[in-house]
Amino acid sequence: MNQLINSIGRSLPEYVEGYGKVQPFAGAFVTQPDMRRQAPKVKRLLPGEQKLAADLREVFKRIPVTDGMTLSFHHHLRNGDGVVNMVLAVAAEMGLKNLTVALSSVFPVHAPLVEYVKNGVVTGLDTNYMSGPVAQAVSCGLFPRPVVLRTHGGRARAIECGQLKIDVAFIAAPAADDYGNLNGVQGPAACGSLGYAVPDAQYADHVVAITDHLLPFPLSPISIEQTRVDYVVKVDCIGDPKGIVSGTTKITRDPVGLKIAETTAKVIKAAGLIKEGFSFQTGAGGASLAAAYYVRRMMEEAGITGSFALGGITGYMVEMLESGLFRKLIDVQGFDLDAVRSLASNPNHLEVGAGFYASPFNLGAAVNKLDAVVLGATEIDTNFNINVVTGSNGVIMGGSGGHSDAAAGAKVTIVVANLLRGRLPIIRDQVLTATTPGETIDVLVTERGVAVNPRRADLREKLQAAGLLLKPVEELKILAEQIAGIPQSITTQQKIVAVVEYRDGTVIDVVRQVNM
Amino acid sequence: MNQLINSIGRSLPEYVEGYGKVQPFAGAFVTQPDMRRQAPKVKRLLPGEQKLAADLREVFKRIPVTDGMTLSFHHHLRNGDGVVNMVLAVAAEMGLKNLTVALSSVFPVHAPLVEYVKNGVVTGLDTNYMSGPVAQAVSCGLFPRPVVLRTHGGRARAIECGQLKIDVAFIAAPAADDYGNLNGVQGPAACGSLGYAVPDAQYADHVVAITDHLLPFPLSPISIEQTRVDYVVKVDCIGDPKGIVSGTTKITRDPVGLKIAETTAKVIKAAGLIKEGFSFQTGAGGASLAAAYYVRRMMEEAGITGSFALGGITGYMVEMLESGLFRKLIDVQGFDLDAVRSLASNPNHLEVGAGFYASPFNLGAAVNKLDAVVLGATEIDTNFNINVVTGSNGVIMGGSGGHSDAAAGAKVTIVVANLLRGRLPIIRDQVLTATTPGETIDVLVTERGVAVNPRRADLREKLQAAGLLLKPVEELKILAEQIAGIPQSITTQQKIVAVVEYRDGTVIDVVRQVNM
Repeated sequence: MNQLINSIGRSLPEYVEGYGKVQPFAGAFVTQPDMRRQAPKVKRLLPGEQKLAADLREVFKRIPVTDGMTLSFHHHLRNGDGVVNMVLAVAAEMGLKNLTVALSSVFPVHAPLVEYVKNGVVTGLDTNYMSGPVAQAVSCGLFPRPVVLRTHGGRARAIECGQLKIDVAFIAAPAADDYGNLNGVQGPAACGSLGYAVPDAQYADHVVAITDHLLPFPLSPISIEQTRVDYVVKVDCIGDPKGIVSGTTKITRDPVGLKIAETTAKVIKAAGLIKEGFSFQTGAGGASLAAAYYVRRMMEEAGITGSFALGGITGYMVEMLESGLFRKLIDVQGFDLDAVRSLASNPNHLEVGAGFYASPFNLGAAVNKLDAVVLGATEIDTNFNINVVTGSNGVIMGGSGGHSDAAAGAKVTIVVANLLRGRLPIIRDQVLTATTPGETIDVLVTERGVAVNPRRADLREKLQAAGLLLKPVEELKILAEQIAGIPQSITTQQKIVAVVEYRDGTVIDVVRQVNM
Repeated sequence: MNQLINSIGRSLPEYVEGYGKVQPFAGAFVTQPDMRRQAPKVKRLLPGEQKLAADLREVFKRIPVTDGMTLSFHHHLRNGDGVVNMVLAVAAEMGLKNLTVALSSVFPVHAPLVEYVKNGVVTGLDTNYMSGPVAQAVSCGLFPRPVVLRTHGGRARAIECGQLKIDVAFIAAPAADDYGNLNGVQGPAACGSLGYAVPDAQYADHVVAITDHLLPFPLSPISIEQTRVDYVVKVDCIGDPKGIVSGTTKITRDPVGLKIAETTAKVIKAAGLIKEGFSFQTGAGGASLAAAYYVRRMMEEAGITGSFALGGITGYMVEMLESGLFRKLIDVQGFDLDAVRSLASNPNHLEVGAGFYASPFNLGAAVNKLDAVVLGATEIDTNFNINVVTGSNGVIMGGSGGHSDAAAGAKVTIVVANLLRGRLPIIRDQVLTATTPGETIDVLVTERGVAVNPRRADLREKLQAAGLLLKPVEELKILAEQIAGIPQSITTQQKIVAVVEYRDGTVIDVVRQVNM
């Protein structure tokens, strides 16, 4: 097989069996759209016709679901999700084979998927993030076809652009009416925003809502509209609330994490971003929240009001909204009960779809309006390329999610990391799996110093003027290696188990099978 | 030219010059969709790129707008609209020719359009309703191509199905941010819902927002999303508030109108619809509001809560929502200041797009869920076909708007009319212009009796049992003719000035030029 070298130097085959022709990554803003939007068949529903189906089997027959189809799911129920397993159990019972599961993120709760792959019910997976038994099985070469790893914005793009063609979208709906209006803020499995399901509902050939909380027509608020939903199925339970939302999200108490977080806030301030209209995205992890804590203090000291916080929304961001530190929250996914409550009741807390959040191919996603984003990494290389897909043993344990999207959009993208991760240096000459290209990463903050991407001389000057401890990334790398030694590189097998697509649909890297 | 006879007996040419091949109306629920959705080109906007344009001329150049294009507009600013004239003035200045204006409704304020047709800037019009100088000019044969008259739901369908292809959608936005998020509830020209602009924004090749009220990003609520808006233009004034919303809408004091309204409410009750979950649509006219008044009293007496009121929303419906008589309002267009205020502040007042409201070709419009709708008519024939397009002199003075849509959707469709209109009997052997087919009209209520469509023997029985004065429609016709004589039929010229499309895109009738 002939090899290509993409613009960040990754060697890729021209063609990957089970995936197709590889369009190599050419730079974060180089590849342009050259297609029309996906155009599903126009349908009608006559007055008096009903959407409520007796059960999933009936829906499977009426559609009908057949071998080889792509079934899509969203991940707002996270590790409490009961819908993916429920639907695949019906598929298995009905003897279906060769299905592709397009699930926006895969969690440990989805372990039964491993069995469905073993017995041929499922042969393909398309996702933005995965952890747990499925991710491990993927790394061991379980799937007959390579898994496609996308970004949250890239998935929305792929659906809208017809590259991820969905035959049937199954939408886990915490609340629904009998005509298919859906939201995520009511009912026992309330999860908040249904943002990741929005493109699926818009472009799938068939849309099935699965709910355990049927309310009178018309439901409100409406997150997904009746006009795109073919069937509504009432089940006893769509998920386990304990796995769906956490009660609270807490700031880290680890002193190293706190130091990194404080430095991160200083970087943001030094970059001149702590001013009226500041916009911000950070993750739900303890260290990211700590960065938010220090940013908040600076905002309060400066007496400014931010325009919006974006992304997966936590109670901490809700508190900042309610305290008047941000005017708006833009929410594609809620992480805790406070986020659900706020979305349900606060008109300044806006629910948006995945395309609005992060797609590179529309007339402007919310990430484009970000001043600063704080992101994590499992590895970073001296060109600032980031790996958030594979761990130190080469096994898949994550995925981009919104990482590459926010990095591409924000004025200043900061990666925070301890120099060592599990006793291994985090800075490498080459990351094992490139996920987010270095050209979209501006700053690396570690506990031993701050490295600025050489592309951002402007930013480097500002941080220097602010007295931040700046070090070349190579120097930080050596510091870590002095403590922990130079890590052995991982040997993988040849078989490609996953293709890592950048948000624009080009291939930024591949993941190969590991020896376990 | 060969002639066709459609299923309600109207004679139509097989082909209309300037319109195309005629697909004859075949019954309200016969014609099925057989196409895919309109698929505009996928675009992108890079981080940092701006949408704010200096003025309309710049936008015209950047798109670029060229001869022969279709420019679309919505009518929520009604007779206060300043945007259509403003855009066409630029088109004229720039020497453009042969444009088609797709404006959801045309009002007297749009009179300058007549000049733009005379000088060739505009040669086509696509609308759902028109009154005033433009309508008169159409009837006199001003346009070189026949005007296409659609329904509100039919326009949404035609856009989604690619039959009304929009090159540039100009959206009058009472409030906007610099990234193209739009709503209709803020700013000096606040008009309420932007529902009719939703399909335009979704499917036009280019979308231009024109606002006089620019707010910081991100605007909320968001009625039309940034992801579909190419340009934002700030102007001094998009419209005259006095023409946009009325301060209040008032119930008729005419005793005949009140009698008809009271009878209408009795029909609804006798039909068994005044029960928990009742849903209702009525117009903004004084007689329609009077029907709402009597319906309300019955709801209060019965102690029931309705599910929703639909349509163009008035303060009277807002009052019913706020009094707990309806759980929700579904709003595609607001008629007065109370409707604007309520939409802005009441989470049970839902803004929807035109497709959600009324399109026949999606997975269920709101009209499908209606129990009862009360509609007007300028003529009705003995087969219950309705004319709401042309007046007694044959001149266009209206259009379907949502008439045919609601009639097709509701369980019980009631047309209210005085037997005489301007001293002419309203019931005819043949309406001059068929707009809404008789098979979707269930009851005619007049001051001299109630006629039930023979297709609804079930309903006839119920009304009879309730003691309502029922008369065959032919008898009511004779009653009127005994008072006013048999009206002379109108002679028109041969030239077709408008093609009346039913909501499914088939042709239900044509309008011919009048002698004025």
